[in-house]
Amino acid sequence: MSVRVGIIGVGVMGSDHARILATQVPGATIGAIYDADPARARSIADETGAAKVFADAVALIQDAAVDAVLVASPDQTHKDLTLAAIAAGKPVLCEKPLAPTPGECLEVLAAEAKSGRRLVQIGYMRRFDPSYAEMKAGLRSGRLGSALMFHCIHRNVAAPSWFDSKMAVSNSAVHEFDIARWMLDAELTGISVFRPKPAKGSSPGAPVYLVLESATGQLVTIEVFNDAAYGYDVRGELVCEKGTIALRAPLRTETNAELIQGTAYPVDWRPRFADAYRLQAQAWINSIGHGGSAGASAWDGYAASAVAEAGLLSLAEGRRVAIELADQPALYR
Amino acid sequence: MSVRVGIIGVGVMGSDHARILATQVPGATIGAIYDADPARARSIADETGAAKVFADAVALIQDAAVDAVLVASPDQTHKDLTLAAIAAGKPVLCEKPLAPTPGECLEVLAAEAKSGRRLVQIGYMRRFDPSYAEMKAGLRSGRLGSALMFHCIHRNVAAPSWFDSKMAVSNSAVHEFDIARWMLDAELTGISVFRPKPAKGSSPGAPVYLVLESATGQLVTIEVFNDAAYGYDVRGELVCEKGTIALRAPLRTETNAELIQGTAYPVDWRPRFADAYRLQAQAWINSIGHGGSAGASAWDGYAASAVAEAGLLSLAEGRRVAIELADQPALYR
Amino acid sequence: MSVRVGIIGVGVMGSDHARILATQVPGATIGAIYDADPARARSIADETGAAKVFADAVALIQDAAVDAVLVASPDQTHKDLTLAAIAAGKPVLCEKPLAPTPGECLEVLAAEAKSGRRLVQIGYMRRFDPSYAEMKAGLRSGRLGSALMFHCIHRNVAAPSWFDSKMAVSNSAVHEFDIARWMLDAELTGISVFRPKPAKGSSPGAPVYLVLESATGQLVTIEVFNDAAYGYDVRGELVCEKGTIALRAPLRTETNAELIQGTAYPVDWRPRFADAYRLQAQAWINSIGHGGSAGASAWDGYAASAVAEAGLLSLAEGRRVAIELADQPALYR
Amino acid sequence: MSVRVGIIGVGVMGSDHARILATQVPGATIGAIYDADPARARSIADETGAAKVFADAVALIQDAAVDAVLVASPDQTHKDLTLAAIAAGKPVLCEKPLAPTPGECLEVLAAEAKSGRRLVQIGYMRRFDPSYAEMKAGLRSGRLGSALMFHCIHRNVAAPSWFDSKMAVSNSAVHEFDIARWMLDAELTGISVFRPKPAKGSSPGAPVYLVLESATGQLVTIEVFNDAAYGYDVRGELVCEKGTIALRAPLRTETNAELIQGTAYPVDWRPRFADAYRLQAQAWINSIGHGGSAGASAWDGYAASAVAEAGLLSLAEGRRVAIELADQPALYR
Repeated sequence: MSVRVGIIGVGVMGSDHARILATQVPGATIGAIYDADPARARSIADETGAAKVFADAVALIQDAAVDAVLVASPDQTHKDLTLAAIAAGKPVLCEKPLAPTPGECLEVLAAEAKSGRRLVQIGYMRRFDPSYAEMKAGLRSGRLGSALMFHCIHRNVAAPSWFDSKMAVSNSAVHEFDIARWMLDAELTGISVFRPKPAKGSSPGAPVYLVLESATGQLVTIEVFNDAAYGYDVRGELVCEKGTIALRAPLRTETNAELIQGTAYPVDWRPRFADAYRLQAQAWINSIGHGGSAGASAWDGYAASAVAEAGLLSLAEGRRVAIELADQPALYR
Repeated sequence: MSVRVGIIGVGVMGSDHARILATQVPGATIGAIYDADPARARSIADETGAAKVFADAVALIQDAAVDAVLVASPDQTHKDLTLAAIAAGKPVLCEKPLAPTPGECLEVLAAEAKSGRRLVQIGYMRRFDPSYAEMKAGLRSGRLGSALMFHCIHRNVAAPSWFDSKMAVSNSAVHEFDIARWMLDAELTGISVFRPKPAKGSSPGAPVYLVLESATGQLVTIEVFNDAAYGYDVRGELVCEKGTIALRAPLRTETNAELIQGTAYPVDWRPRFADAYRLQAQAWINSIGHGGSAGASAWDGYAASAVAEAGLLSLAEGRRVAIELADQPALYR
Repeated sequence: MSVRVGIIGVGVMGSDHARILATQVPGATIGAIYDADPARARSIADETGAAKVFADAVALIQDAAVDAVLVASPDQTHKDLTLAAIAAGKPVLCEKPLAPTPGECLEVLAAEAKSGRRLVQIGYMRRFDPSYAEMKAGLRSGRLGSALMFHCIHRNVAAPSWFDSKMAVSNSAVHEFDIARWMLDAELTGISVFRPKPAKGSSPGAPVYLVLESATGQLVTIEVFNDAAYGYDVRGELVCEKGTIALRAPLRTETNAELIQGTAYPVDWRPRFADAYRLQAQAWINSIGHGGSAGASAWDGYAASAVAEAGLLSLAEGRRVAIELADQPALYR
Repeated sequence: MSVRVGIIGVGVMGSDHARILATQVPGATIGAIYDADPARARSIADETGAAKVFADAVALIQDAAVDAVLVASPDQTHKDLTLAAIAAGKPVLCEKPLAPTPGECLEVLAAEAKSGRRLVQIGYMRRFDPSYAEMKAGLRSGRLGSALMFHCIHRNVAAPSWFDSKMAVSNSAVHEFDIARWMLDAELTGISVFRPKPAKGSSPGAPVYLVLESATGQLVTIEVFNDAAYGYDVRGELVCEKGTIALRAPLRTETNAELIQGTAYPVDWRPRFADAYRLQAQAWINSIGHGGSAGASAWDGYAASAVAEAGLLSLAEGRRVAIELADQPALYR
């Protein structure tokens, strides 16, 4: 039987999720759609064959024709909708962040722990990206010894005008926080944030540079540069005792023209992470009904938020900030 | 409603097709399985959730619970099973080759033309490979001018002991014949086959080298080397008036170790063409019920066989051989 | 003591040779310069510190202040000037070709053989290119087994208006003939020339495609495309039993800009082969006075001309042509 | 007339310098050699054609048959020998570092300033590496806007047993300090040193990670990892407003074998920087007698030492340390 997914929020992210579930994921159908904009909800429902359109997100969550919930509405709504899904006993895939602050994330942890089972997955889709997966498999093979450093780069073509360095930490770098924790199988324990300060003034997406330590002693370095202009580019190199492993972005062709041998960068994250989104959705659907869970947990969502909070303090005060986490509930061990 | 696919033959290729349809292709279910080895049929049926197992391939084709047929049985059975599917009015995806000789292929063309609609797709899956697709899009963009040459390389780790130069032409190079016809949108009109003759004797997968001309004047060069040892490697470079486009194989990571910066080759075609098989299956399923057709047609299967036949003559006689095609039925225009 | 080199012809090639010898090659000085244009000779003499300017090439060769001769005058003068150098008992580095026809080359062989010592080096500078040298070292290491095929590509940005397919064979492809003979340590025995024939007509540098066989059984394939537009690009891949080795052009940096990750092609051969010209000049100078000889011999110059002659016949008649060489004088064994 | 160079110290570095000057640099001859080991001095003198061997370094400097001095003796001797060369009024190319401490470097600055002319060049040969030069030309072209960050990586196969993190800063990272100052045309003003602390203990060449700021606001990040095992690897990426430029190491070939497409790393710096050493030596020789100077000055040697001193303090105290420079004498502006 197909899992009937209710989609909450069909902006850029949510409508992509709906299309992926409808056309690339066996075992899933779109059961219902809610959006603050009813016309948009209707349009995506028609496109994806959704059975129902709701005018209220909680009503969608509670509807008997919805087996599982995907939350892609604005960030500040994530926590309450996730709590509602837990209350309804339904699996929920919540886009990152789980909540704007670690404190709010802890509310979700408490509710899920109380429910006694894992219902929440956070949309840190990079864990399903074949490149990160192959890097992790390479590390686990032991061939290169232990990991010592993990260098990460995150570049966008252009940040929107309302972006700033704080968002580079809390909104962009969280993807790196999560993937570093997952790659190294360790919590992050300290963070130092640096900023270049070019004479000519700064842009919304001006770079920030982060150096973190892990509980197992590795250094994680992260460049976030959202006005990088030249293309969407996410890189990673894992430096081990006997060698290194670096990500390769998906490339289909190379072109020789006009005195350049070149390969193309995408303008945004979608081509880069198309496989990751598809495989994340498939793994989520496959886990439903099998008592399992896939991908980043609510704990992972909390931990990324805690690192971001420390990073914002480091950004403000120009010094290293230690990262303190709450005790981990037994459900997540 | 799901398309209930009947799979005929679940050896290496057929069981891969069954798994892909069962786990990666929304809109498809495995309706029935036939294999000459009943235990094998049962095993794959259990794995893929197939409703029925048949002891007779034609009975499977004719069963009311089968909407469409995938033929992956031995080459010499392809023609008759495809004819049976046409007779039953059911869409059929037939693994290449359509038939061992062009003459037999023409029988299928005649039957399909008589049926009045396109039911047959040939499993030349490279047409769905994202790299070839991006190459073709690049050509069509016009940015590089017209195509002048298409250089193709096809290398395997090792050929089986029963392989020989004739099979390199008729079995391996046919993939290149098809993709060249598709890329250039032109029939191939002549072929010259060369062989290196190393002093120390030859191996089953010793190289053959082919130079072909197209009806629109391009040269197509093809190296087939099935004992290449170092990895499975398929390459292509399209040389145009103002530049070239080359395929890039999917790579996820690169590794620095032991004085080498390296990327990995797969040992066979499956990792290289995983996307192509998935997208081919999806396109086939999507085309069913929409009166459409996707991918290589029976005509394409015939044309590839005709080129192979000419290639075998060139191999035997050491001279250029002209390729003559039958008149194309209106159904394929 | 410095070798005082007399330069004959200071057009593009000759003036480059003069500058390289004057500024990059210890042990050499420019002793004298001749050019059909006296003002040009004077200008390059001033630039390179040449002691003398001559109004007659043979007088330069015979002058006591000239220890060795570099011939970079027009092709049709090469033979007579080389003969004059042999007559004067002076080492001569002659730009390719040694002579326009194999028959004329044989005159030089005869004269040099009669002189009893090796005085002639032909400017097939690729033999000194670090990439070809590393490829040959890789082959000789035996790690990859024997060579089976050698794929060569030679592309220029644009051919001059007076260029044609015949010159692509006799003028461009000769570099590939020489390097293939050197790489495989074998003579070439047969040649088949193909041409794409695009509907829209041809350009002066329209492609030719050559398939050659060697005396030791290898296939050599050569694409020559002098209107390739996108950049100067020379490639080679040596296909061996257990793996392949491919050339890498010198690259200093890569640039990310405007949605492309790119590396630069040069507009002509000079950046690509700067090291080769320097190392060739150094090896030539080092060989003088040590009774040795370096690089391509007069025999090599003859052999390349013989292959080109066969290639022109194949181009004209559209068939494979066997390559017949004269007996090799003992001096060259 | 040739410049007669006196070489002081013919260990690994000094004997390489002697060979390069003797065989690759027109305009130079080896006039004299001194080494603490007289037999070694004699051996290299014989190999390079040196006219004299000295038993005393200062006597070599003062000898009338020595026009210029190259200092490649142990670090602690550099200062006094450089001062002796200044006293003798002779150009001196001194291997890095100029002196172990910034204070000692200032003694050299004072002496050179007093002499009224630039005689000292420090062997920061990367300034002559074609890759760094092409990167700087790309930056200066303005096409990519201003520089914001410069990421540097310096990896060795294995550090000797007497190496430690302090030497990683003072001995390895100084190359990066110099090249960053040169690339950005700015002094470095602050430094923060980090160390991964893997559970299993550290090796002599365990990594250090440095984040520096420049006077013009850029961030410079430097990884130094001298036990990196996989190969000698120096990387750099200059991140600008509109794109980035990255170094490419010299590669001659790529090899396909054993399921890997790979390029080779050298085991030490010599193949990577062979061009840089040759071009540095040539530029130095060319500058002599033309009143000019080339490459890194004594001021540059001092500045690198000052950055290293601050880096050592940061390493010891685990905090950012500001870098303070003395006033720059007019001679270096």
